[in-house]
Amino acid sequence: MLLNCDMGESFGAWQMGNDAAVMPYIDMANIACGFHAGSPAIMAETVALAKQHQVLIGAHPAYPDLEGFGRRSMSFQQSELAAILTYQIGAMEAICAQQGETLAYVKPHGALYNDKQSQPHLFETVVQVLAERNRHRQQPLRLMTLAPLVSAANTAATWQQQLAHRYRVPLWFEAFADRRYEANGQLRARRHADAVLQTSAEILSQAQALAQQHPINASDGSSIQLQADTLCVHGDNAESIATVAAIRKALTEITRSTTGTTAVKPQ
Amino acid sequence: MLLNCDMGESFGAWQMGNDAAVMPYIDMANIACGFHAGSPAIMAETVALAKQHQVLIGAHPAYPDLEGFGRRSMSFQQSELAAILTYQIGAMEAICAQQGETLAYVKPHGALYNDKQSQPHLFETVVQVLAERNRHRQQPLRLMTLAPLVSAANTAATWQQQLAHRYRVPLWFEAFADRRYEANGQLRARRHADAVLQTSAEILSQAQALAQQHPINASDGSSIQLQADTLCVHGDNAESIATVAAIRKALTEITRSTTGTTAVKPQ
Amino acid sequence: MLLNCDMGESFGAWQMGNDAAVMPYIDMANIACGFHAGSPAIMAETVALAKQHQVLIGAHPAYPDLEGFGRRSMSFQQSELAAILTYQIGAMEAICAQQGETLAYVKPHGALYNDKQSQPHLFETVVQVLAERNRHRQQPLRLMTLAPLVSAANTAATWQQQLAHRYRVPLWFEAFADRRYEANGQLRARRHADAVLQTSAEILSQAQALAQQHPINASDGSSIQLQADTLCVHGDNAESIATVAAIRKALTEITRSTTGTTAVKPQ
Amino acid sequence: MLLNCDMGESFGAWQMGNDAAVMPYIDMANIACGFHAGSPAIMAETVALAKQHQVLIGAHPAYPDLEGFGRRSMSFQQSELAAILTYQIGAMEAICAQQGETLAYVKPHGALYNDKQSQPHLFETVVQVLAERNRHRQQPLRLMTLAPLVSAANTAATWQQQLAHRYRVPLWFEAFADRRYEANGQLRARRHADAVLQTSAEILSQAQALAQQHPINASDGSSIQLQADTLCVHGDNAESIATVAAIRKALTEITRSTTGTTAVKPQ
Repeated sequence: MLLNCDMGESFGAWQMGNDAAVMPYIDMANIACGFHAGSPAIMAETVALAKQHQVLIGAHPAYPDLEGFGRRSMSFQQSELAAILTYQIGAMEAICAQQGETLAYVKPHGALYNDKQSQPHLFETVVQVLAERNRHRQQPLRLMTLAPLVSAANTAATWQQQLAHRYRVPLWFEAFADRRYEANGQLRARRHADAVLQTSAEILSQAQALAQQHPINASDGSSIQLQADTLCVHGDNAESIATVAAIRKALTEITRSTTGTTAVKPQ
Repeated sequence: MLLNCDMGESFGAWQMGNDAAVMPYIDMANIACGFHAGSPAIMAETVALAKQHQVLIGAHPAYPDLEGFGRRSMSFQQSELAAILTYQIGAMEAICAQQGETLAYVKPHGALYNDKQSQPHLFETVVQVLAERNRHRQQPLRLMTLAPLVSAANTAATWQQQLAHRYRVPLWFEAFADRRYEANGQLRARRHADAVLQTSAEILSQAQALAQQHPINASDGSSIQLQADTLCVHGDNAESIATVAAIRKALTEITRSTTGTTAVKPQ
Repeated sequence: MLLNCDMGESFGAWQMGNDAAVMPYIDMANIACGFHAGSPAIMAETVALAKQHQVLIGAHPAYPDLEGFGRRSMSFQQSELAAILTYQIGAMEAICAQQGETLAYVKPHGALYNDKQSQPHLFETVVQVLAERNRHRQQPLRLMTLAPLVSAANTAATWQQQLAHRYRVPLWFEAFADRRYEANGQLRARRHADAVLQTSAEILSQAQALAQQHPINASDGSSIQLQADTLCVHGDNAESIATVAAIRKALTEITRSTTGTTAVKPQ
Repeated sequence: MLLNCDMGESFGAWQMGNDAAVMPYIDMANIACGFHAGSPAIMAETVALAKQHQVLIGAHPAYPDLEGFGRRSMSFQQSELAAILTYQIGAMEAICAQQGETLAYVKPHGALYNDKQSQPHLFETVVQVLAERNRHRQQPLRLMTLAPLVSAANTAATWQQQLAHRYRVPLWFEAFADRRYEANGQLRARRHADAVLQTSAEILSQAQALAQQHPINASDGSSIQLQADTLCVHGDNAESIATVAAIRKALTEITRSTTGTTAVKPQ
């Protein structure tokens, strides 16, 4: 179970997050590509930081919307969206190559992430762009997307898997350590007061359950089980960074007890 | 003598130039990369148009300055500028790859073009970025830069050639069909009323002279000879497009009479 | 019947329209406020041009969206939208005052114009902002909005009139010289091939009918009558500018034959 | 001696400073106008916060440069700069009026602040714009500028005072609580390691000296005396906010011991 975290989301004089403090604890850095946050220089710095900590580098492309931080849906024709994704992924690949690194995966950001969950033609555009990039690469780019429900027949994940399979784009399913889920496996919308888990204990507990493929509690009290390859964490302040460190420690112990070996990223 | 022209410089609802009308007459398209003009979608459309007319595709990276159209000098640290260039070039390479095309060269735009002429450390950053990209390519990216004076010892060109040679980045020297030159081979600054040639006849005559490696008239009436691989033309309106067509015709005739064969790009 | 036209819609190096050629023929200039087009300097130049031709100056505020030219709907809270409008109107008033001019009216632009037609709470925010500004002015700002149908009971116009009346904001209803209407008085959507009138003759004929309060032909062949105070024209190219000149001439003749006096703006 | 502080400098998802924590301790809020930071909605919120704490509202206009936070010099023609200032000041005045407040003063931001110190024609453009706005106001807008040296003949301040007097624009001179000064009264450039005072004790001590018109220590160890009407403070983090609170307390005591009355803004 790999830990992923959004990174490189500062802009100009505005700092966001504390990348240097979080990077030691994660396995995958989702790096902003300049459309919702970041800049070429910030991308280069964040890639260097990821390289230093041997963290996998992911592109975190978004709609072109700095003021809205990529959180507002925008309507684009399929060819426009393909160009927007190709542009950001290509830019990130070149920034990586400049430091001898290779881009490992793509995680769409914000409204684009959500839109691809609900709009199959948009999801297909994303996988087409990745398939196209993969034709030029030795190691295929993976696409990170929302974890499907395991116990139930999850239609959404099925069509995503079919589309990804058709274009031969490997998927990484992700679950969120600090977000509450609905009984159907969807993220509880942020307009609800309990959409985000509040205490470190709750977040740590959910992370441990997800890592061990145990069920977690949904918003209605029911139990659901998600099939996740990676866990999204956030490190915006001192408390959340401590929580990430605790999750890393717990995951290391789970891995050790399960396999008798150390985890991918021991502290 | 190849003809190059700035392309893809529209933005949102604002159109600039008439790319479709000019593309049939040129050999090299300098395509804006979204920092001074263009967008991912415009880049993709312009690459498709260049592909259709078998025109070489060049990246036209710029300072990040839409409102100033990349014509204002901006101060960046060397590492920042390297990231800005790498980002734009990588984005353009990916847009090209999406259509099965390959980026052929890089021509910095506007203030960045001028600044690299006068600031050796900035020129070195540009060639370093190209050298880095070339490590990942079969065909090396070329850098387009201002044509040096032939008859005199041109210090500026000499240090450029030395730097480019050190990093093994091939150069293409360009001259301008419609700009007046100073006696020292520099472009006459735009603040002078006679900086731009006014009549089609003048422009055509200068283009023919440059193509045949004949001397041209400098602003003080003296004769200078420039060593150019490519000629920059502009196609902003009906008259200038007709001039480009006339230059193309003249170049084809010069090539035919010289070599007995047809030019690279016959009408 | 006053002629109004969108003005000041250039941006940076990109020119749009030919303001100097159109200004002599119109009565009202809808000047962009920097959010979808324009800039402080362009606003100042356009105000100077309007002043020279004794044209009424209107603010043309928009959603903050340069790349989309203010044509994409964006979701804002009521307080945010009020601030966005107040900001642009205040900026335009100050630019006018600097030249001894007074802002006469406000015409929302693009998606904001359309959204206020269909969303009463949004229309109310617009009139609230104007009512607030009017408290500080001698001459009240007017709001320009879509002309209602005269012959039928037009619900849309009724609620608009009621809201405007409640806040004591005077309305100017506008009709479009070059756009086709539906039988219900709405503009025919641009996705239809016949949404825009193609020939100068058609446009001139519709303008004359509207000016004389005669019925015009709707898209389904029926006759409708619009109650308009002002007519929106466009002057993007030589042909459309000639059409504007012809409309101005026709309006002057209509006014002369009706009242025995010359029109507001004789050629 | 009034305390002023830069406010409203967040942008989109990026927060800067802690306006709510600092506002209770200051007398004057320099509010960003959307060109280097802020937005119409942030301006409205910050004006509301200033109103709640009875703090004077100042416009903090800047060069149009979000990514550079207005800290990069940009070259504009005098008429362009006048339009840029008029636009931002007018927008801020309208936002104030919407809440029944009045703009009290203008403090140019960043590179614009510095450029007006060294370029008299630029300073003159600023005072011309204020003089123009003052023609429409009951209470004149004041201009905030760098405090002159008292003990020495300060040429810079003299030309500023003469220009401001000629246009009848009142000046407020400001000194910086946390910046080191050169012997000639200029701010020590930020490239020097000791440009910013590090400890709260140092900052508090300099603030007290400035408030009592005592000399302060310049970078070379000499004593200089500045003539300041207002003191600029910063409240970026918990420690600096505590320092601002301490300065406020000290100023209140100084005022009480001097005049026998309480200060403008008691805690």
